[in-house]
Amino acid sequence: MAILNENFLKLKAGYLFPEISRRIKVFKQNHADADVISMGIGDVTQPLPTAITEAMKKAVAELGTSNGFHGYGPERGYDFLANLIVQHDYKSRGVDIETTEVFISDGAKCDTANIQEIFGLENTVAVADPVYPVYVDTNVMAGRTGPSDENGRYGKIVYMPCTAENDFSPELPTQQVDLIYLCFPNNPTGAVVSKETLARWVEYAREHKAVILFDAAYEAFITEDDIPHSIYEVQGAKEVAIEFRSYSKSAGFTGVRCGYCVVPRQLKAYTKDGQAIDLNSIWNRRQGTKFNGASYISQAGAAATYSDAGKKQIQENIDIYMKNAGLIRKTLSELGYEVHGGVNAPYIWLKTPNEMTSWDFFDVLLNKAHVVGTPGAGFGAAGEGYFRLTAFPQPNNVEEALRRIAKL
Amino acid sequence: MAILNENFLKLKAGYLFPEISRRIKVFKQNHADADVISMGIGDVTQPLPTAITEAMKKAVAELGTSNGFHGYGPERGYDFLANLIVQHDYKSRGVDIETTEVFISDGAKCDTANIQEIFGLENTVAVADPVYPVYVDTNVMAGRTGPSDENGRYGKIVYMPCTAENDFSPELPTQQVDLIYLCFPNNPTGAVVSKETLARWVEYAREHKAVILFDAAYEAFITEDDIPHSIYEVQGAKEVAIEFRSYSKSAGFTGVRCGYCVVPRQLKAYTKDGQAIDLNSIWNRRQGTKFNGASYISQAGAAATYSDAGKKQIQENIDIYMKNAGLIRKTLSELGYEVHGGVNAPYIWLKTPNEMTSWDFFDVLLNKAHVVGTPGAGFGAAGEGYFRLTAFPQPNNVEEALRRIAKL
Repeated sequence: MAILNENFLKLKAGYLFPEISRRIKVFKQNHADADVISMGIGDVTQPLPTAITEAMKKAVAELGTSNGFHGYGPERGYDFLANLIVQHDYKSRGVDIETTEVFISDGAKCDTANIQEIFGLENTVAVADPVYPVYVDTNVMAGRTGPSDENGRYGKIVYMPCTAENDFSPELPTQQVDLIYLCFPNNPTGAVVSKETLARWVEYAREHKAVILFDAAYEAFITEDDIPHSIYEVQGAKEVAIEFRSYSKSAGFTGVRCGYCVVPRQLKAYTKDGQAIDLNSIWNRRQGTKFNGASYISQAGAAATYSDAGKKQIQENIDIYMKNAGLIRKTLSELGYEVHGGVNAPYIWLKTPNEMTSWDFFDVLLNKAHVVGTPGAGFGAAGEGYFRLTAFPQPNNVEEALRRIAKL
Repeated sequence: MAILNENFLKLKAGYLFPEISRRIKVFKQNHADADVISMGIGDVTQPLPTAITEAMKKAVAELGTSNGFHGYGPERGYDFLANLIVQHDYKSRGVDIETTEVFISDGAKCDTANIQEIFGLENTVAVADPVYPVYVDTNVMAGRTGPSDENGRYGKIVYMPCTAENDFSPELPTQQVDLIYLCFPNNPTGAVVSKETLARWVEYAREHKAVILFDAAYEAFITEDDIPHSIYEVQGAKEVAIEFRSYSKSAGFTGVRCGYCVVPRQLKAYTKDGQAIDLNSIWNRRQGTKFNGASYISQAGAAATYSDAGKKQIQENIDIYMKNAGLIRKTLSELGYEVHGGVNAPYIWLKTPNEMTSWDFFDVLLNKAHVVGTPGAGFGAAGEGYFRLTAFPQPNNVEEALRRIAKL
């Protein structure tokens, strides 16, 4: 008899975004004419820069020729892209990463979801709360957690509350944890941390032989000078951290699919009897066995993000989004909302008014303003009472959404 | 302390193809001038048909416009492609599949690797021997096996030998097995089975509440009329089988990355206490949580494979490969080799001469003829004494390789 992986039955109903889609669908069935503005799912809206489309058209054309045809690429990605990553994303910030430490993939969601596979089920996982649900749900599926309680918190997971009181920067755990998911600039709160704060995490991980899974998918949105873009800017981090990067939000690749992670050669995990094992080779084996490389076309497009024209055009799009973020912050503050984030991240994290629950505020916003956001509770128990708005819509839609919210 | 998933340490040294790459690299270091012809890894060589490149260029251009921009697509793939799949791949052969039963991905390797996640670790896995290593290695990583023995066979896996004696069609297991990987047309043997034989597997699975994981990645290469292209051509198969398809070999997508699997609504797995659970919704949850959809560009290219021009151009490429296959069969037979496959599949499976081991024959072929093939032992213990050649090289390379082999 084929037995189910019963861990799937522990998952709470519906991943956050499908549930939002369902509510929008119901609303639209009853309000066919309503012009719904989405500030919910963190999806970009600006068209791809021409430097990127030109590079991808060229890649497609190559594939149509005998000499330019590319079949299977390296599972870990092409060196032409990995070399650019090493140079532009790391060396430019004083960080030495080797090409063989870079693993190119079809996106940071897949990488942050799959990375837990190389670790044993006995590890204690720590996550921020609120948190990007993928970190938690993939550990639930793997069997690293108990069932969920009435607040939606799963057994065995160590939740690290992030609230206005701690500036949305979690405290170091007071107990032993083994795998620590950190995301800065943060999704959903938009918070960032200083190099000194990151250094304390690296120190904790070194002391406890823990591994930090550092999601830097939003680093391109950092506007303040002294905020680290990579955890490897902290001395010693290569011994304890895997870093995830994405072209999705910075370069508009949500539909193109390309990202990467860095697994440094110094990074180890341990067998139960204490033998240190190099994780770069384990992840390489995982990717070589279960993945066949990102699309050649997507990798060619990603390479173009590092050209002078590509960089300039990407920055123009980021500026549009961050101008949205500034406007959302300013307008909502003036309306009396308590507003966080939006300075070094494309997410604005606001306190729901009048102690409303976040799903109630979702329904009010959808039904009264025809604006979709993301309920904080969808990101975890500590997200209750908060609400995420993204800065990714077209500017005219942001302005219109803010006008409607002002009328509420 | 971060504990490793120690199941990775059970894996035998190197996945097959990296080991082949390593030996080629060593050879080339010592023979810089040698013109090595690869008939090893099953990678296509014909450029992409123009119907497909045109569709992908159009998709790239769309992404560069405000109106045509596509961000996140559905994790399960776009309906525009799923509808074509339902119509052209299934309805055309009398099989009714619903759009919501189709899950589009970045390739069949990922799907056949990931599918085991939705099943419990207590299931008994059955695989053909020889076998595509991904089926086995992913179950090793997950912890569904014991360590490997001296023949490279992992504990708890049920290996079903496929040899010339049984026409490379495995016997039904005499014991209870729960997850059965079948691949027809077969990689690596090139064997196919009749509808009657498949029906016996479906019957076994229904009786034993087992699930068949049916890899049909090579169905486009079937030339004989009475061979089933889909397991769903067998009555009742939708209750017991998941089917995997790929555009890699048929349409030249090895570098473009697109494939799909079908998880029928009737298909169930069971909780330990016997409750039947719908696997379509479980796989949907898995993909929604861990995957972000195949590239829009790749999906647009895949859709073009179903246009009249696309179909015709793809068939021209398949004809080139199958003409290669016929030539390899004919020439090697005339040279006295025992040859299998190559009629309904792009793989020729030959017996090594003089009882040589398959890695010895690999080294002879590489060193004396500068031709690379794949040692049968790399696909499992029962593959020892066999050798796989692919029909995918350029025709002039196939002819040259055969001339060199004739001289051995």
